[in-house]
Amino acid sequence: MEFSAQQIAALVNGKVEGDASVKVNTLSKIEEATKGSLTFLSHPKYIPYLKTTDASIIIISEGITDEKPGTATLIKVSDSREAFTILMEAYHKQQFSKSGIEEFVHISPKATVHKDVYVGSFTYIGENTDVASGSRIYPNVYIAENCKIGKNCIIYPGVKIYRDSIIGDNCTLHSGVVVGSDGFGFVPNSENNYRKMPQVGNVIIGNNVEIGSNTTIDRATMGSTIIRKGVKLDNLIQIGHNVEIGENTVIAAQAGVAGSTKIGNDCMIGGQVGIIGHLTIGNRVKIAAQSGIGSNVTDDSTIQGSPALDHFDYKKAYVIFRRLPELSQKIQELESKIESLTISK
Amino acid sequence: MEFSAQQIAALVNGKVEGDASVKVNTLSKIEEATKGSLTFLSHPKYIPYLKTTDASIIIISEGITDEKPGTATLIKVSDSREAFTILMEAYHKQQFSKSGIEEFVHISPKATVHKDVYVGSFTYIGENTDVASGSRIYPNVYIAENCKIGKNCIIYPGVKIYRDSIIGDNCTLHSGVVVGSDGFGFVPNSENNYRKMPQVGNVIIGNNVEIGSNTTIDRATMGSTIIRKGVKLDNLIQIGHNVEIGENTVIAAQAGVAGSTKIGNDCMIGGQVGIIGHLTIGNRVKIAAQSGIGSNVTDDSTIQGSPALDHFDYKKAYVIFRRLPELSQKIQELESKIESLTISK
Amino acid sequence: MEFSAQQIAALVNGKVEGDASVKVNTLSKIEEATKGSLTFLSHPKYIPYLKTTDASIIIISEGITDEKPGTATLIKVSDSREAFTILMEAYHKQQFSKSGIEEFVHISPKATVHKDVYVGSFTYIGENTDVASGSRIYPNVYIAENCKIGKNCIIYPGVKIYRDSIIGDNCTLHSGVVVGSDGFGFVPNSENNYRKMPQVGNVIIGNNVEIGSNTTIDRATMGSTIIRKGVKLDNLIQIGHNVEIGENTVIAAQAGVAGSTKIGNDCMIGGQVGIIGHLTIGNRVKIAAQSGIGSNVTDDSTIQGSPALDHFDYKKAYVIFRRLPELSQKIQELESKIESLTISK
Repeated sequence: MEFSAQQIAALVNGKVEGDASVKVNTLSKIEEATKGSLTFLSHPKYIPYLKTTDASIIIISEGITDEKPGTATLIKVSDSREAFTILMEAYHKQQFSKSGIEEFVHISPKATVHKDVYVGSFTYIGENTDVASGSRIYPNVYIAENCKIGKNCIIYPGVKIYRDSIIGDNCTLHSGVVVGSDGFGFVPNSENNYRKMPQVGNVIIGNNVEIGSNTTIDRATMGSTIIRKGVKLDNLIQIGHNVEIGENTVIAAQAGVAGSTKIGNDCMIGGQVGIIGHLTIGNRVKIAAQSGIGSNVTDDSTIQGSPALDHFDYKKAYVIFRRLPELSQKIQELESKIESLTISK
Repeated sequence: MEFSAQQIAALVNGKVEGDASVKVNTLSKIEEATKGSLTFLSHPKYIPYLKTTDASIIIISEGITDEKPGTATLIKVSDSREAFTILMEAYHKQQFSKSGIEEFVHISPKATVHKDVYVGSFTYIGENTDVASGSRIYPNVYIAENCKIGKNCIIYPGVKIYRDSIIGDNCTLHSGVVVGSDGFGFVPNSENNYRKMPQVGNVIIGNNVEIGSNTTIDRATMGSTIIRKGVKLDNLIQIGHNVEIGENTVIAAQAGVAGSTKIGNDCMIGGQVGIIGHLTIGNRVKIAAQSGIGSNVTDDSTIQGSPALDHFDYKKAYVIFRRLPELSQKIQELESKIESLTISK
Repeated sequence: MEFSAQQIAALVNGKVEGDASVKVNTLSKIEEATKGSLTFLSHPKYIPYLKTTDASIIIISEGITDEKPGTATLIKVSDSREAFTILMEAYHKQQFSKSGIEEFVHISPKATVHKDVYVGSFTYIGENTDVASGSRIYPNVYIAENCKIGKNCIIYPGVKIYRDSIIGDNCTLHSGVVVGSDGFGFVPNSENNYRKMPQVGNVIIGNNVEIGSNTTIDRATMGSTIIRKGVKLDNLIQIGHNVEIGENTVIAAQAGVAGSTKIGNDCMIGGQVGIIGHLTIGNRVKIAAQSGIGSNVTDDSTIQGSPALDHFDYKKAYVIFRRLPELSQKIQELESKIESLTISK
């Protein structure tokens, strides 16, 4: 595929400066770009590359600089990052042209697969499951009975969805995601063994949710584990039974949320964070990576540590932690001095 | 399915108070229950719902209250939680009616699949592998050569079991579990590269073990990695080569146990705990979430922190950690005071 | 399979002491070995087993002891551990005799599968993908379009490889590994939602790389995520978009590396370590388990803690941390003493 500067400017609502007929066929970073590349410049620190890059077209935020490029054609836009995203989406969409049902699939006669759905080989779709139009179910996917997959979802290879799960529109589930496995519920019995608590609830995922590779989301014991619209989960995250995650909350890789905890909207939770069960985390909460959360958190808090404190308090305490050997030494010296003062008195 | 209060009371050995003919067709939490629901009341804090719930039947622990319900029929039992578990198991079992061999499977002619086994589509069973009666092997499962799967196991979609693995009776392996992958064993060689140490051992899993989604259990370098009967592993756990885990030990999500460590019976290990290799952890040990274990732990210890201390010592130290800036300030003040005392003398 | 002491000595370039015709058919640890077993003795602490083991053949490092064995035949070598590795590799290779294309596969007519490749059932190979000679692709594997798999790779069951990925020669990918899933890139938009940043880069993996079960490696946003030759990754590791990992670096289970961080050569990174994005970690860096890395690290550092310090500094500070309640007590006593000194003055 080739695009001219003029075509691109039309797509991103930009203004061409330079040769509008120059064409590009690939995307590159400005510092690595070669002839035929499209690149972008959004941060002032990259301004020096304007002169030196071999890129053929540069999309640039208006007002960032008045410097002239070396050889490249400029496309000026109000926000180069957003423009770039629009372009990459256009580019990306062209890569996903798959449709139809491939060979070797198992689709229950009682399942409903709507029009324009792609189902890859070795994929299993169970009874009473409904896959809405425009969704792409890649190979080696398992979708059990009584599930609902919304419109225009992308279910990557190797995703496993247990029975009764409900997934909204425009969701993306990456490879190895497990939705609806049993929560970790065991009741000790009289012989000091554990009896499994049957898990009869389900998982509900809202619209526009993206879930990273090998992340696991357990079904509710009763009721529903709920991931609300716009939530973004990174890879290898654990979401326990009956958890609720509020709209547009973002969680980084390898974090874990234990059973029945409710997390608010617009939170940002760092990598490897652990949150114990039965807590309430407010809205717009920020949690630093590797923190451990053992009690409720109010709206708009920013916290850090294990157990977590206010992040300024944690940072201040940790600065002193580094100096503890020195402090311990000082205390010893003070003791000696006081000892000698007391004696001399 | 509908059940009457009378039928349910018979199953759980309970005593009906109210209309024994009332019927239910679903399970709910007491605070969310609608007409036609069965619910339970085991904790005093839910007593107020007795009057207000729309549930048709409430299973209630004897002695918890003498208050009368609004409209619901009561079933009195000695332990409502255990009764509920019994009921949910009955409900749950009805959902698993699958049997027989589905289309598109690969079962080696040298494998033995006993009667009443379910094998889902796209599942692979290798040479000399034996699947005992009553087990359900879901779609997209891989079981290699020389494996033994016990009776009445549930192997969920996408489980991968490497050669020579032995799995007991009544085990449940959730989606994405990997059993028997190579341990992490590399020997630096003279050219400063790593040479792989072949992993010729296996994994042995006892009866009644449950393993959560995407958990990985490495085979032994030589000998066996052993998960003893009754062990419960949550999701995304890492068990290294040659590890042994004692009976009825429970490990929460995202914990990791490095190679050759032996863990005793009846331990409770929190989420995201890390245990280094070649340790011995005693029986009935409790480890708080996110702790890091770097040395042996004796029976009945409760520990916390990274590296872990006795949990009371950790908590006491962490309380002071929060106050470190204040302590540091105090030390400075003491220094000034002593300085002035010394001068004034 | 049976091997005589003479055959084994020839393979490992060793010298037989005792009956060269004795045969073995299995491998064991010296303390568990039975008749017919081959074992090895590399560490002095195992010397007492020389007399008591039932092993038929013992491979022993020269110079470790002059003691005579009980009944076993000795094979003396310069380094018993290396000898053992050579033998186990030979043993191991015999187990992997699979070849050819099994039933129920989907190989695109536009894919190239070279000679001596094994492709297991339910495996999917996409358009323009090239699998070089000698590689073994197990069942239930997904390899997307435009990928390149090198020579003699082992791709275990359930691996998922997204489009455009490049994998070198002699690589081993264990079950559940995901290569090339989308990086975690979302840009907040004007309606306070997140817009997905399309991920148009790829993943490049060098020769002789081994990747543990359920580890995830995200594709680059643009450009490449790069895992250089000789890298060993354990299970359940997260590698973010645009990360680079230098030659022969070893990372233990459940560690995570966030986007765009560059790690040098010959590093050793412990389990559950977290490294934030956009950092540079030098060569030969050692990071203790569970550490959290929030800033650049210079060559040859050894660090620990979250946030990480020099490991000696961390250990010294942590020793005092344990004694904080005692220190706090001392400060209180000092305050009282000074108070009384001041008053008495």
